[in-house]
Amino acid sequence: MTDLRDIESTPLVTDLYQLTMLQAYFDHDMRDTAVFEFFVRTLPAQRRFLVAAGLEQVIGFLEDLEFGAQELDWIGRQGSFRPEFVDYLGKLRFTGDVHAMAEGTVFFADEPILRVTAPLPEAQLVESRVINLLHFQTMIASKAIRCVLAAPGKLLVDFGLRRAHGAEAGLLAARASYLAGFAGTATVLAAPRFGIPLFGTMAHSFIEANEVEIDAFERFARSLPENVVLLIDTYDTEAAAAKVVQLAPRLAAAGITIKGVRLDSGDLGAHARKVRRILDDGGLRHTTIFASGNLDEFSLARLLAEEAPIDGFGVGTRMDTSSDAPFLDCAYKLQEYASRPRRKRSEGKATWPGTKQVHRRFDGEGIMRGDVLGLEGQGGEGITLLEPVMRAGRRIAPPATLEAVREHAAAELARLPPELQKITGSGQYPVTISSALRELAYMLDARPI
Amino acid sequence: MTDLRDIESTPLVTDLYQLTMLQAYFDHDMRDTAVFEFFVRTLPAQRRFLVAAGLEQVIGFLEDLEFGAQELDWIGRQGSFRPEFVDYLGKLRFTGDVHAMAEGTVFFADEPILRVTAPLPEAQLVESRVINLLHFQTMIASKAIRCVLAAPGKLLVDFGLRRAHGAEAGLLAARASYLAGFAGTATVLAAPRFGIPLFGTMAHSFIEANEVEIDAFERFARSLPENVVLLIDTYDTEAAAAKVVQLAPRLAAAGITIKGVRLDSGDLGAHARKVRRILDDGGLRHTTIFASGNLDEFSLARLLAEEAPIDGFGVGTRMDTSSDAPFLDCAYKLQEYASRPRRKRSEGKATWPGTKQVHRRFDGEGIMRGDVLGLEGQGGEGITLLEPVMRAGRRIAPPATLEAVREHAAAELARLPPELQKITGSGQYPVTISSALRELAYMLDARPI
Repeated sequence: MTDLRDIESTPLVTDLYQLTMLQAYFDHDMRDTAVFEFFVRTLPAQRRFLVAAGLEQVIGFLEDLEFGAQELDWIGRQGSFRPEFVDYLGKLRFTGDVHAMAEGTVFFADEPILRVTAPLPEAQLVESRVINLLHFQTMIASKAIRCVLAAPGKLLVDFGLRRAHGAEAGLLAARASYLAGFAGTATVLAAPRFGIPLFGTMAHSFIEANEVEIDAFERFARSLPENVVLLIDTYDTEAAAAKVVQLAPRLAAAGITIKGVRLDSGDLGAHARKVRRILDDGGLRHTTIFASGNLDEFSLARLLAEEAPIDGFGVGTRMDTSSDAPFLDCAYKLQEYASRPRRKRSEGKATWPGTKQVHRRFDGEGIMRGDVLGLEGQGGEGITLLEPVMRAGRRIAPPATLEAVREHAAAELARLPPELQKITGSGQYPVTISSALRELAYMLDARPI
Repeated sequence: MTDLRDIESTPLVTDLYQLTMLQAYFDHDMRDTAVFEFFVRTLPAQRRFLVAAGLEQVIGFLEDLEFGAQELDWIGRQGSFRPEFVDYLGKLRFTGDVHAMAEGTVFFADEPILRVTAPLPEAQLVESRVINLLHFQTMIASKAIRCVLAAPGKLLVDFGLRRAHGAEAGLLAARASYLAGFAGTATVLAAPRFGIPLFGTMAHSFIEANEVEIDAFERFARSLPENVVLLIDTYDTEAAAAKVVQLAPRLAAAGITIKGVRLDSGDLGAHARKVRRILDDGGLRHTTIFASGNLDEFSLARLLAEEAPIDGFGVGTRMDTSSDAPFLDCAYKLQEYASRPRRKRSEGKATWPGTKQVHRRFDGEGIMRGDVLGLEGQGGEGITLLEPVMRAGRRIAPPATLEAVREHAAAELARLPPELQKITGSGQYPVTISSALRELAYMLDARPI
């Protein structure tokens, strides 16, 4: 067993067949330019649009792509790879161009959000990790933005690390939900990595480690006087709210304000109403109520519909796992090789061939009115969504700040047709396939293979 | 932004509240011994047992737990943490004991699979990552073993990296599915990391990059003569099978055998029957058929029920995301502090208090007959499932090899009651709560808090 580079950057986070195909490309000198596109074939039942995310990590991965000495050594010892191929791998870098939709952009089925134009082996090799990165963040951003739609104006915080699928999922879910409009995350690493604001209170274990609940509240408040949010559902929620009221004057005397309380179990709406009354009657009108526990866009919508007096929500597991749609039917497919368009015809998985572009039209109010999926260079009405982001293996511009991406996502949300701004409903956004693209597909199907 | 240690080992893969609680523990000198246990509260609808996995990664994490200089510096700059606390964090290591079920062990709701006994701050700090590691691998092993049950004797390979939730999920899904009985994975990094056998063929892009399908087959076979598995569904599956037959003598003359073909779309059973006939009629009786595409235990069971002539399966997305149950209702809870048992009473989330043990009884044939969840030291019939694995912060024995874990999981499967060896059904395994444990819970509920 070799200890290799860290999991976020090693090129061994790939499928074996990328390496075997690369050896065959090498042997047969297949190094012409290939065009691959990443797209989602069909949207999950409970999504009517998706939000592009993960591009920044893809660009970083492509810029840094390189096999290290230990990795090459390991590949060389496998028996199936010849020394001259391993040498070639050692020199391989990503030298291609990338076009992409900006992170935070709304998109629909069949629309590519990333296009890689590069020598075939380079474009092929990166497939597994490019999908792995784009798929996850796009899925989470698309789930998170539904929470934002369901709870407009509420403070939303990502609480999902513990049940996210591994450390990278936890970290990138924090990023994807923040860009979709969350206020921040509890995941610490997201702050030094991405500058995302952190939120956190206390766990039940803190309460339980103290003999008496009110002592736990007081100790926590005195240790962290700037951010006193007390968890009140460990034993009896309303009794604990009364203790908060009882404690408040003593803390106030020390200059400490109880900023909020957190509910984490039971009927959150019912508890919030009772707790709000107890706090208000106790003179704690400015103490906010924060709720967590099994939340998603549907429970948020219910709580808002019943006007539960809750100021903010911690949304965890169901968002970080996109639990109602834990994968997207996405693909990264060869669309053109050596200037010839390609098309897979597999049943149920046929793809639109050629190098494509998406045009989007808006009405006078700036609301999205329809997209056309066509061939690049064919022209069309409206703005084009795929723009160059890398040329000859290097990024064209400095990374967009996460704040800018977040603003773009918010602007996209405002441009959505009102029907799509609801978390349920049947209205579909119109995406048309251009006639030139249809003709190309038809022509390719007639080609002998 | 600071570039910190790699994501698999940094202690910043945690929730902010662990750090805030630790400062409060520090301020109030709460360093007595705490007992935390990890367990699953309720099983997902489509699971009647789970398989413990992820312990090895937890032990590694606990042994290496340490804040680095950059991490401490970053924490110190946040404003809410006092210098003396940051100094204390710098010296903090995990010095506790761990008891656990061996990886690969079958377990049920409410049964702890891990117990941490350590000074409160240490046991608290590790919560987020311990859950993150145990939850994911346990969920995947429990899904994977259902595929093994559904397709006994078939070659099963993990194909899930691309849609796994990030790189770590892809890597650890390869490990969890292998220990559950899969033959291997396509995820390259799993081989140098864990010694897991790799499998791989070719992608549609390889076929499409060649003008003519049969050329693609021949080029691939000549480049990788030891492992010729040809993907035949890019255009027309049966036509491609005929090309394989046509190509075989030419390759045979070069000493190359076509080991298998792969189907990846359409009605896999129907295609497999037609392809089997074409291959058999063409004299390729030993060429195997491998299938992939949207598989899970249910589709595997259907294909086996219809006796589809398929020799092996690539199982990807639905396993690596545990798509029908993408999270487990698990928790890591304080059960005892300073020798006093603790119990959370939150609605729907009450826990069994105290330091617990699981006893398991078997019948004369060695089949599991029932478990008792009781208090440690209370005694009971049958074997105990929680055994010491770390003492004073160090592992007690060298890591179990992954092969040994895999054998243990297979033995566990054989010991399951026959009713639970089916992927559907209603029989439940009997888990009894000991009367001593019930009495303790009752007594604690009467305690004033």
